Amino acid sequence: RNKRRLVSSDSEDEPCKKMTLYYHDILYEAVPSNETANATSSAATLPTAMSNATYFGMLVVFDDPVTESKALPVVAEDVAARAQGFYFYNGKAKFNAWFAMSLVFNSTGCRGTLNLMGADLMDQKTRDISVVGGTGDFFMALGVATLRTDATEGFFYFRLQMDIKLYQCYL
Amino acid sequence: RNKRRLVSSDSEDEPCKKMTLYYHDILYEAVPSNETANATSSAATLPTAMSNATYFGMLVVFDDPVTESKALPVVAEDVAARAQGFYFYNGKAKFNAWFAMSLVFNSTGCRGTLNLMGADLMDQKTRDISVVGGTGDFFMALGVATLRTDATEGFFYFRLQMDIKLYQCYL
Amino acid sequence: RNKRRLVSSDSEDEPCKKMTLYYHDILYEAVPSNETANATSSAATLPTAMSNATYFGMLVVFDDPVTESKALPVVAEDVAARAQGFYFYNGKAKFNAWFAMSLVFNSTGCRGTLNLMGADLMDQKTRDISVVGGTGDFFMALGVATLRTDATEGFFYFRLQMDIKLYQCYL
Repeated sequence: RNKRRLVSSDSEDEPCKKMTLYYHDILYEAVPSNETANATSSAATLPTAMSNATYFGMLVVFDDPVTESKALPVVAEDVAARAQGFYFYNGKAKFNAWFAMSLVFNSTGCRGTLNLMGADLMDQKTRDISVVGGTGDFFMALGVATLRTDATEGFFYFRLQMDIKLYQCYL
Repeated sequence: RNKRRLVSSDSEDEPCKKMTLYYHDILYEAVPSNETANATSSAATLPTAMSNATYFGMLVVFDDPVTESKALPVVAEDVAARAQGFYFYNGKAKFNAWFAMSLVFNSTGCRGTLNLMGADLMDQKTRDISVVGGTGDFFMALGVATLRTDATEGFFYFRLQMDIKLYQCYL
Repeated sequence: RNKRRLVSSDSEDEPCKKMTLYYHDILYEAVPSNETANATSSAATLPTAMSNATYFGMLVVFDDPVTESKALPVVAEDVAARAQGFYFYNGKAKFNAWFAMSLVFNSTGCRGTLNLMGADLMDQKTRDISVVGGTGDFFMALGVATLRTDATEGFFYFRLQMDIKLYQCYL
């Protein structure tokens, strides 16, 4: 591998790298009973008594597929990355969430991870979280990921569109 | 909006931005029974058997108000930001904690988030955690937040003073 | 203290600081019954029904010793730092984990914290997580930590070798 050098974009209109990916979450506790084998996430805690109508306190651990198109992956090659991390609900009067995760890329074209963290403000059409670090092909990445809810099915499936823009890259 | 450019302070005495804010946590499980409606945080897990006297393992999810003065907010305009995230106790012989959260600013003067993470070393008068990223008006922020315990009431209320200093800003 | 200035390495072969440390985890729920006093970590949640053979969803809170050599610490001076944070298992078909923690240094030679986060890909011989921030002597640190499993004993003890490389330092 040629030596990589730090590239720092000083303008928010010019990320040094950008990509759009789709995150799919299939929650074990809510999926139809004959589809539990398809689940990719599961609740490690129950909602608390303070506000269980908005699932306050429910923490979900996930190893979710991430794709380049909106469709759920059918074969392994459809999976661009795996999203590994957790989210929890933290809204008292309405649904709200918080995320921390790694996007793990493991294909011949791309190997490395992006680490993300931030507030998933579910009542906003778009909301930004931070890219706080990266490894491998994404060594020392910093940036922003814009999330939007792309689809939901009951409580057991949702898909997020993630527009990822890096402003520090080693290229 | 004018194009913002990266400003990186190379001296720790000269942050590119600084602010002092107060974080208020009102814990549902510990608040007097006639005041549960005032609670803004709740425990998602119980302390473990290893050291329940110091609450080891108790993880609290929060959507707490953050103010510019020490007083609890009375009207919506008193709330400078909401702190959304979690903390847990991780001290075996004494109380100790760890935090990850987003400060969510949503007023006409300020819209965006700051993402923070680090060790809340409760036995130290002051302790520093990291600002690991930011979005919106705090796009690509990096810095340090100095925490100090400003007040406590039993187990159900504490207030932290947060001195936030950013050393990377887009201005 | 002399004024520190930002040093940013633009080459991944030349970190501005590097160190190798060993992380020791002794899990309370799995340790032999006459050794529970030695435990330094404890599970805040149980594995979920989705995949309890791989402990999916089990979240462990820790205040673990970190040493410069592979040996468990015997006296206080053997402890280079404490690792304070959490990990959880998130593998459905095989063991996999995710970490967020602070390395807390508190000796005469070194005071400060490093904040780390990322995917602990347990089936890989080495795997990288991000250094997302630092405080004190590690003020504004950014970098990468390479993890490898150095030893395991049943389910109650594992040791990780951590090769930490910083690419942004204030020196």
